[in-house]
Amino acid sequence: MSDRLVAGRAVDLGRRPTVMDLRTIDLNADLGEGFGAWQLGDDTALLSVVTSANVACGFHAGDPLIMRTVCRAAQARGVTVGAQVSYRDLAGFGRRAMDVPFEELAAEILYQLAALDGIARSCGTRVSYVKPHGALYNRIVHDREQAMAVAEAVLAYDASLPVLTLPGSVLAEVHDDLQTVAECYADRAYTPEGTLVSRRSPVAVVRDPEKVAERAVRMAVSGEVEAIDGTVVPVSARSICVHGDTPGAVELARSVRRALSDAGVQIIPFA
Amino acid sequence: MSDRLVAGRAVDLGRRPTVMDLRTIDLNADLGEGFGAWQLGDDTALLSVVTSANVACGFHAGDPLIMRTVCRAAQARGVTVGAQVSYRDLAGFGRRAMDVPFEELAAEILYQLAALDGIARSCGTRVSYVKPHGALYNRIVHDREQAMAVAEAVLAYDASLPVLTLPGSVLAEVHDDLQTVAECYADRAYTPEGTLVSRRSPVAVVRDPEKVAERAVRMAVSGEVEAIDGTVVPVSARSICVHGDTPGAVELARSVRRALSDAGVQIIPFA
Amino acid sequence: MSDRLVAGRAVDLGRRPTVMDLRTIDLNADLGEGFGAWQLGDDTALLSVVTSANVACGFHAGDPLIMRTVCRAAQARGVTVGAQVSYRDLAGFGRRAMDVPFEELAAEILYQLAALDGIARSCGTRVSYVKPHGALYNRIVHDREQAMAVAEAVLAYDASLPVLTLPGSVLAEVHDDLQTVAECYADRAYTPEGTLVSRRSPVAVVRDPEKVAERAVRMAVSGEVEAIDGTVVPVSARSICVHGDTPGAVELARSVRRALSDAGVQIIPFA
Amino acid sequence: MSDRLVAGRAVDLGRRPTVMDLRTIDLNADLGEGFGAWQLGDDTALLSVVTSANVACGFHAGDPLIMRTVCRAAQARGVTVGAQVSYRDLAGFGRRAMDVPFEELAAEILYQLAALDGIARSCGTRVSYVKPHGALYNRIVHDREQAMAVAEAVLAYDASLPVLTLPGSVLAEVHDDLQTVAECYADRAYTPEGTLVSRRSPVAVVRDPEKVAERAVRMAVSGEVEAIDGTVVPVSARSICVHGDTPGAVELARSVRRALSDAGVQIIPFA
Repeated sequence: MSDRLVAGRAVDLGRRPTVMDLRTIDLNADLGEGFGAWQLGDDTALLSVVTSANVACGFHAGDPLIMRTVCRAAQARGVTVGAQVSYRDLAGFGRRAMDVPFEELAAEILYQLAALDGIARSCGTRVSYVKPHGALYNRIVHDREQAMAVAEAVLAYDASLPVLTLPGSVLAEVHDDLQTVAECYADRAYTPEGTLVSRRSPVAVVRDPEKVAERAVRMAVSGEVEAIDGTVVPVSARSICVHGDTPGAVELARSVRRALSDAGVQIIPFA
Repeated sequence: MSDRLVAGRAVDLGRRPTVMDLRTIDLNADLGEGFGAWQLGDDTALLSVVTSANVACGFHAGDPLIMRTVCRAAQARGVTVGAQVSYRDLAGFGRRAMDVPFEELAAEILYQLAALDGIARSCGTRVSYVKPHGALYNRIVHDREQAMAVAEAVLAYDASLPVLTLPGSVLAEVHDDLQTVAECYADRAYTPEGTLVSRRSPVAVVRDPEKVAERAVRMAVSGEVEAIDGTVVPVSARSICVHGDTPGAVELARSVRRALSDAGVQIIPFA
Repeated sequence: MSDRLVAGRAVDLGRRPTVMDLRTIDLNADLGEGFGAWQLGDDTALLSVVTSANVACGFHAGDPLIMRTVCRAAQARGVTVGAQVSYRDLAGFGRRAMDVPFEELAAEILYQLAALDGIARSCGTRVSYVKPHGALYNRIVHDREQAMAVAEAVLAYDASLPVLTLPGSVLAEVHDDLQTVAECYADRAYTPEGTLVSRRSPVAVVRDPEKVAERAVRMAVSGEVEAIDGTVVPVSARSICVHGDTPGAVELARSVRRALSDAGVQIIPFA
Repeated sequence: MSDRLVAGRAVDLGRRPTVMDLRTIDLNADLGEGFGAWQLGDDTALLSVVTSANVACGFHAGDPLIMRTVCRAAQARGVTVGAQVSYRDLAGFGRRAMDVPFEELAAEILYQLAALDGIARSCGTRVSYVKPHGALYNRIVHDREQAMAVAEAVLAYDASLPVLTLPGSVLAEVHDDLQTVAECYADRAYTPEGTLVSRRSPVAVVRDPEKVAERAVRMAVSGEVEAIDGTVVPVSARSICVHGDTPGAVELARSVRRALSDAGVQIIPFA
């Protein structure tokens, strides 16, 4: 942990904590992203770190047995289950934008959501939120028709389910009844406008574990992040996304969690 | 309608009907078996004939939009929805036996069942029964492990859901809590042992619409069918399956329904 | 056949035909677009009408057995086989634009092309041209990266294979070695700029068989078409595409062929 | 390396080598068994060990880009490429037996074989043999119809291509023109009858690297293996299969190769 963070805590210790001081944040990560014989990431390790598990629903990853296995483990660990819905694209891991018409996309989202919820219930838990995956996640930030399709599916299934999304996403505007919850990324660089720097940029990803942990704490405690040009931009998020599919990812997630705890942030599910 | 059936009704008319005389039967058919741009059968026409719709769940046929469209139409017509679960085999339409291990198969059945039920609920109806499809249907007549997998999935999802199966299937024995319901086939030839004549036999299918209707009435009224050797064998079934995917199938189904009505049989959902 | 066309022929008959008078055109259509249990269009009927069969290669439609069956029939009828390559999208029939990266798309095109060619050769014929399908076909008209991917795949497999495309497509410019061949659509409305009117427009498709036939003849004989505003625009095409997957499509294709023959146009494969 | 092997070489050194003394063997392994975002095994490492690469063709694993990448690397390293054809079963990794009808299976094999060969040729190499994968590999040892389907496909594509199979497979008998080549498994236990001990047995796999290497040398040099009951049974094989998809697999393969070299066995492609 950096001196700065320790210093930050020391300041806090100078007075009695009040209710106003109790910061809480959720940690979410993608899980169950294997398929058949293929594995991706370390689900077991991640379940000991995160409070919310975005479980793949079979369209970009995740076969029914993997889904059931992850739901069982999440239930046993008290981790909240979310439906990580996607375009139907196993070969591209849901990372390729697709022009799926409204009715088709809505039905596909509903199908995935219902399938995972049924499996989760058979494990003594249930789907408590939705997180669109990959290219779909990025598309509904600006594509009103696809955002509406996601909204329609979630509302048709269970209007009480919140959807994790980027702050500023049009998804948050397309339907009054849809609950959206903003999340932020501790390991992604931000523009001065508060959006993510494109993955094509060499500076898109922050790799230094200490810096990532430090950013997570600042996001949770102060609701802000330093953009690539040094500007401090507000990030108002109830959940921080950590990645689990890269080498060292689990260790990075663990250090984020540790730093948040050390900073007095309570880590609890948002949903 | 044949004279014999009319004669049969005439005999009944000679005395006052009692509760014992009220015969009821269900008519089920496979629906929603298209996929993407491909269509199969005439769902709309069949929904005006049957009382139970076995809706494909996406593993052998049926994409999410087709599933939703069929569920909407079934709800509008008051037709009961069942989950037509299958091996994962779009290319083979679920007709190829597969050695799927227990845990995998159970999870796959659960996934399909939950997906369709969620879609059905978004249409104001729900899944009320399960009918395994194709090669899986035939396999669980004798394969105890796969039958157990189907049973485990259904019980895990909703133990009150009955499963349509052939009389004598081991599925009926594998678990005390599982409800199975026998069905029979008006257009399939029977062996003296009461099993279906293999589809490989040239006499497997009865094609004469009048004969098919006559057999359906005898099944519903007397609980018996004439086997290929002339033996009369008992068939105790609460549902008769009619096919919808062949030319003339809808007309055949209609004539079965008409004959049953003419014979005083009440056609109502079994589930 | 309209009087105008008959009149047109009458004029031609008045003098000896010369080499300059011998007009030739190719007729192509999409074939083998079923999958597993699902059928689409009437392949047998179309094979008696067209000179070039765009055979689906398994990514949007067409399983290996259908591919082999169509290739056998095409070989028997002397119809040229082309590879109808597509995005990997069975559920969307290849009609949904996808952001497939260059290397991935090139490999996918190569895979489909080689698979069909191997099957065609086992039937005594071979792939003689390539026709991209659906959303890919439309995308490579303007998307340079995807056009390059198609070009790279075709050149890597067999640089002598021509690719059917819309006139003005960027595909025609992306690589000096790639041979492209322009085609036109007798049943589609054209803008004054010579592009197709979008399918979303109610006037996109010409449905009157006589008009379609007339347009085909004008395209083949005079190399021009009347746009929706009455302007006469040049269409320089060596092949006319006819559709086979709609009701009445085969009859329409037959009438196009008849009109072309009646107008003295020789119908031969372009490749 | 064990003393016994060193001793074995010492004996050979005592006299001048003759043509009869030149033992050769091929080492084959499964490669390219990832799919999309998923990886399996270490293709690069294996290519430095084996002489024949069984490249997955997209039906149980291996997307077109992976296939092309592996073919490029194999070509660069001088490793022979074989087509690892399979049932169409991504979700089950081709490990689940399937009742695929003859015509369908033959077309599927032909499709895969042609697709890989086209890709290989674009990389300056070509498919030189065929190795059926997983459940199909085991099925054609005894299922005459499926064996015939594999034979028909290979003969239809290129009758000169040999097929790797277990000694005693019915595949070797179904067609006079089909060339089959026997292979053996250094890390699998054998029955006294010379067949592999079922994977369900706890003693099915030999895990001690030194023993595996020793068995490989004995197979290559003496054409025999010690069965589980101590019986010495003949194994007449031109290729030894090493596995690449388990932890430590590459190291095991390397030690097999080293032991064979140390024993004076020349390791060259069989095809």
